[in-house]
This record gives sequence, structure tokens and C-alpha cells, in this order.
Amino acid sequence: SRRYNIALLPGDGIGPEVIAVAKDVLNFAASLEGIGFDYKEMPVGGAALDLTGVPLPDETLLAAKESDAILFGAIGGYKWDDNPKHLKPETGLLQLRKGLGVFANLRPATVFPQLVDASTLKREVAEGVDLMVVRELTGGIYFGQPRGFKTSENGEEIGFNTEVYAAQEIDRVARVAFNNARKRQGRVCSVDKANVLEASILWRKRVTAIAAEYPDVELSHMYVDNAAMQLIREPKQFDTILTNNIFGDILSDAASMITGSIGMLPSASLRESGPGLFEPIHGSAPDIAGQDKANPLATVLSAAMLLKYGLGEENAAKRIEAAVLDTLDKGFRTGDIYSAGCKRVGCKEMGEELLKSI
Amino acid sequence: SRRYNIALLPGDGIGPEVIAVAKDVLNFAASLEGIGFDYKEMPVGGAALDLTGVPLPDETLLAAKESDAILFGAIGGYKWDDNPKHLKPETGLLQLRKGLGVFANLRPATVFPQLVDASTLKREVAEGVDLMVVRELTGGIYFGQPRGFKTSENGEEIGFNTEVYAAQEIDRVARVAFNNARKRQGRVCSVDKANVLEASILWRKRVTAIAAEYPDVELSHMYVDNAAMQLIREPKQFDTILTNNIFGDILSDAASMITGSIGMLPSASLRESGPGLFEPIHGSAPDIAGQDKANPLATVLSAAMLLKYGLGEENAAKRIEAAVLDTLDKGFRTGDIYSAGCKRVGCKEMGEELLKSI
Ligand SMILES: CC(C)[C@H](C(=O)O)[C@@H](O)C(=O)O
Ligand SMILES: CC(C)[C@H](C(=O)O)[C@@H](O)C(=O)O
Repeated sequence: SRRYNIALLPGDGIGPEVIAVAKDVLNFAASLEGIGFDYKEMPVGGAALDLTGVPLPDETLLAAKESDAILFGAIGGYKWDDNPKHLKPETGLLQLRKGLGVFANLRPATVFPQLVDASTLKREVAEGVDLMVVRELTGGIYFGQPRGFKTSENGEEIGFNTEVYAAQEIDRVARVAFNNARKRQGRVCSVDKANVLEASILWRKRVTAIAAEYPDVELSHMYVDNAAMQLIREPKQFDTILTNNIFGDILSDAASMITGSIGMLPSASLRESGPGLFEPIHGSAPDIAGQDKANPLATVLSAAMLLKYGLGEENAAKRIEAAVLDTLDKGFRTGDIYSAGCKRVGCKEMGEELLKSI
Repeated sequence: SRRYNIALLPGDGIGPEVIAVAKDVLNFAASLEGIGFDYKEMPVGGAALDLTGVPLPDETLLAAKESDAILFGAIGGYKWDDNPKHLKPETGLLQLRKGLGVFANLRPATVFPQLVDASTLKREVAEGVDLMVVRELTGGIYFGQPRGFKTSENGEEIGFNTEVYAAQEIDRVARVAFNNARKRQGRVCSVDKANVLEASILWRKRVTAIAAEYPDVELSHMYVDNAAMQLIREPKQFDTILTNNIFGDILSDAASMITGSIGMLPSASLRESGPGLFEPIHGSAPDIAGQDKANPLATVLSAAMLLKYGLGEENAAKRIEAAVLDTLDKGFRTGDIYSAGCKRVGCKEMGEELLKSI
């Protein structure tokens, strides 16, 4: 039987609740495939700030690096909103991504047939949407140097950041996108602003060069403003969207909202080798934290991505995915995806139903 | 009777067709208010490239600067797609904006009741959307220095841009947003990425400071990724959205697509004093250029904005806006907004109907 080390980083708000459910589901589904886990639970974000004074303690990063995969909950809350930048919960997440070097962020946006009416888009537009955003995660304007504040000659305050990409940073995330597209519909749409930005001109040039290694994958290019429109106009046109860190932040959130199932969407952050980071795309939802109202399915599906992309355990992943669909088919819904005629359940009860379905 | 000098910059693709209609409508509506115009038509974009070798000839910029207002069509086309950056049609538009110093770009996104079903959003979500994006237009990553390409120590190619804002650049566009909000529902939502970017931290700080001058206007802040989601989830929550150049580019296009009426939306680019630039938000649509298929209403409504914001001629502006609504009420539609039961017309015929309605 195979054993893996999992770093569990529940974080803040609803993080601990959804992680608890996801852990149970992960354990049970994996056990049926003869897989066992050793967990190390570590603080991150606001929880770490309260405990240690920093949003990513060295011990947490070390435990993450030494694990086989990391399951992350959510971070942030009103309490730390006014902290200076280096003491914000979000900074802990950025440091974790950078520290792990997980440069490729995979964000599927799938409309679940059972939830199509939860989308604000018309049924015929939303139905069947199944796209994957591959977002560069450790470069670009998020980490570019120089950055900071300065004073101009006339005493004015100035704030600045650097959007910067080196060829290799683009090449490696492009390969992740092309490889993924191969397992999907074989189409990559690379999104940039090459009509204005030099960083985007290089992006387009490198993506085009890497595409030559994947003659079986179709490549197109789109400007980011147009991509934001096309996601609303006809999201089904997309298979794999490849883009930089900041555009990916914006477009993946837009894509997730199009599905109407934002409480349902997982993500995986990967590098060539080394542990991947798996987290729901939703936030810490401090307004409903601790009330057993949260939807655990995004974290549960992140655990499925952990099995599939992190550990190569496809069968166990499929057990979880099937259980999620089955539980939806049976009509169980947390408040965020509830509609008339369904059975309203809390976070824990949803977990119990998932275990029954596995 | 009042006379104004108008610089007409038709540009490329459908630009000349829609400008021709808008000019006729502008003339007629204004004449009824005792207003006359002298026009100077000048090349810009691809048309200027073909004629003079540059996308914004000095003469065009000069004519624009010496005018009372500029009516702009659209630029770009396949022919110039592979041009180097300084010889792209788009560069002409950016140089024009910068040359005129029009730092505040006003982009209304309004759902016309007659066209609500053209939106891909559900009727109850789209109906009644009426928001205004105020986008900073002459700063940020579009123009920030340093920018360009370099080679790293290990011989790798690097592309980079600078996102940079000085306090005054933020202050002046914030004032435009607050002033506009006063004439609307009195709510400004400032969009940034202050949890990651220093340029955004300064943005938020300055906008908050300027808000103190407008105690009657309500200010909220939102991260750009959340804003992209909220535009899809519940666009009616927004009145005035204030944001930087690149986020404004993305969000205003998303907002316009939400209305389903992208062929209907105008824009105004303004500074404290000096001529404003008025243009439809749609592009040059090279695929339908010269076929009398284009929807001239976005340009016609841009002419209305020219009257209102550029010349302070509100009455003439209202005549145009009323004529647009009346023509829609009568069922006239160009192909892009056509639906069963309406009367399909070309660009010119739409112009004739507008003249009848005025
Ligand atoms: C919390 C924040 C720093 C983060 C980001 O901008 O990357 C989040 O929005 C995300 O997309 O995971
Ligand atoms: C054509 C392009 C340079 C321009 C921009 O990015 O500003 C356009 O997208 C717009 O929004 O007016």
C-alpha cells in the first residue's frame, strides 16, 4: 500500500471547515485504492499571523516543501485587513506559491449540469462550459522588481510595479498549457496585451515558438480585453486559456463566475517536480465562517486534483469526482448552490453524503 | 449662433462609414439648436500609415489639439497586424490620447430596454444595468517607463513594463469620477489590486483622500478579480467604477458585453480643459467594412457625448439620444442587434431613420 505525506494548511474563515470535510473524503476514497496518508497540519495566513506574527512561518513552508502535496483552505479576514502589506494574510499565500515555485496554476471552470441555472448567463450560453485557465503564478507583476514607493522631484508620492517575464518563465508554463490541452480538446488560446505591452510581445513570441513542439494542439491568441468579453459572449469557444499572472487572476475569476458554481471550483498549482499546492478558488468567506454553512465541494474537488495531478492517483481522484456528481444528483446542496426542490445541507452533512456516495 | 471646430478622424475599417452617419446626425441635431460646425478630416491609424508612414501624423495631432472636440471612428485591420509596435494603428490611438492629455476615459455601459435580450445574461440580471466606467487613460502600464526588452545574464530574452502612478494622476481622474457620480447615483466603486501591487496601494490611498472632498458621494473599494466576477454576478450593483488604465481596459469591455449592445456604446476621453476625444468603444470590424452593415449608433452616441461633455451643448445632445431611442422603438436594427420581428437596416439607412426621428 502506498503512503504519502500531505501538508494541510486550513488557514482562515471557512478554511478549517472545508479542509476537515475534504480530509475525510480524501482518506476514504484513497483507502479504497490502498492509499494512506500522513498529515501535517500547519498555520498560514491570518491564523499564522495570530500565532507567530508572520503570515507564512518558516516551519509551514518547510513542511509544505517536504510534503508530497499540499491541501490549502483559504486565507484572509476583516481582522487583518488594515495590516501593512508584509503582514497581510494574502502575502502568506504569495510567499508560499513563490517558495514552492509552483509556476503553473490550473483553474478549471466547469458548469455542472445540475447547477446550470445558478449561472447568471442564459442556460444556452452557460450549458456545457468546460474550460481550463492555465495561469502563470510565480512571475509577472506579482513579483517583478523594482517595486515600491518613491517621491518625485516635485514631492509627489509615486507607487510602481514591474511586469516582467523572461523567456523560460513563459516557455515552461506554455508547455503545461499545451500538455493539458492534449488531454482536453487540444486547443490553447493564449491571452495577452501584445498591442500595448512589451512583456506581452515576448509572451506571444515564446508561446508561438513553444507551439511548434505541439503540432497536434491548435494555438490562437487573444487580447485580454477581448477575452473578458468573449468569456461573457460565448464561453464555450474556449478549451484551454493560457495567460500571465495578473490577467489570469482576473479572467479565472470571471470564468468561475460564469459557471455560477464558484463554491464548486478547485485549483492546482504545480511545478515540473516537487509538491503541488491544491486549493479551492473561493476565499475565506469570514461572514459565514464557523457556522457550518460553507460549501466544501471546491476543496473536495481540490483534493481530487491533488490525487490526480499531485500524486498521479487517477483512480482515487475519479472516486471523489463521481461522489460529488452523485451527491449533486441526489439533490444535496449547501446554501450557496441551493435551489427550490433540493435538500439543503450544511458543510458537515455534505461531507457525510459524499462519504456515502464513495 | 455658435460655431465649433471639429476634428474628424475616421480611421480604418468601418470607421469612415459610421463617422459619415454620425456627422450628418450631429449636424442636423446641432443646427436645430443654432449650432454650426467646421470640420477638419484627418488620417489616423492604418489609413495614416498607408498615407504617411506613421499612425499619427503631426498634422493630425495638431488639428486635434486646435479643435474644440475630436470625433474618432476606429482603427486597425489585418493589413497592419504584423507591423512593429511603433507602426501599429493602435499606437496612433495611444499617441493621440497621450498627446491630447485626455486622462479620463468615460465609458457608459447601459442596457437599452429595447435590446435587453441581446445580452447573454439573464433578463433579470441585465435589465436596468446603467453604469459608467471611469478609466485612467494616459498613465499606468500603458505608458510607464522603463519598458522594453533586454537580455539576462544567462542570455535569456526578457520583456518588461512598468505600472506606475503618481499621486496627482490618481487625484485628477478620481475627481472626474466623483463629479460624474454626483450626476448619477452618487456611488463610486474604486477597483484596484491593493492586496498585491504598490501602485494600487497608492491608488486606494489617494482615492480615499479625494473622497473627503465629496462627502455626498459614497466610496467603496473592490479588488479587480472580484470586480470581474461582480460584473457578471450582479452588474446592477455598480454606479460609477473608477479604475486604472489596464484594469479599465478589461473591465469596460466586460461591462459593455454585459449590455449585449457593444455596437451601441460610446466613450469620451477628457482632460481638465482642452478638446476631448469621442469614440465608439467597438473596433474597426474589418470583416464587415465597406459593406454598409456597421451599426453607427455607438458613434452617433459618441457625437452626443461630444456635445454634452465636450461642448456643454446638453440640448443638442439630448436630441440625438432621443432620436436613438425613438429609432430603436420603431424597430430599426442593424445586423449586430437584429432580432426577429425588427426591421433590418444598413448603416446608411439607420442614419436616415435617425434624421427623421430628430
Ligand atoms: C489572495 C490573492 C493574493 C490571490 C491572487 O491575486 O493571486 C487570489 O486572488 C487568487 O487568485 O488566488
Ligand atoms: C486599441 C487598444 C490600444 C485600446 C486600449 O487598449 O486602450 C482599446 O482596447 C481601447 O480600449 O480603447
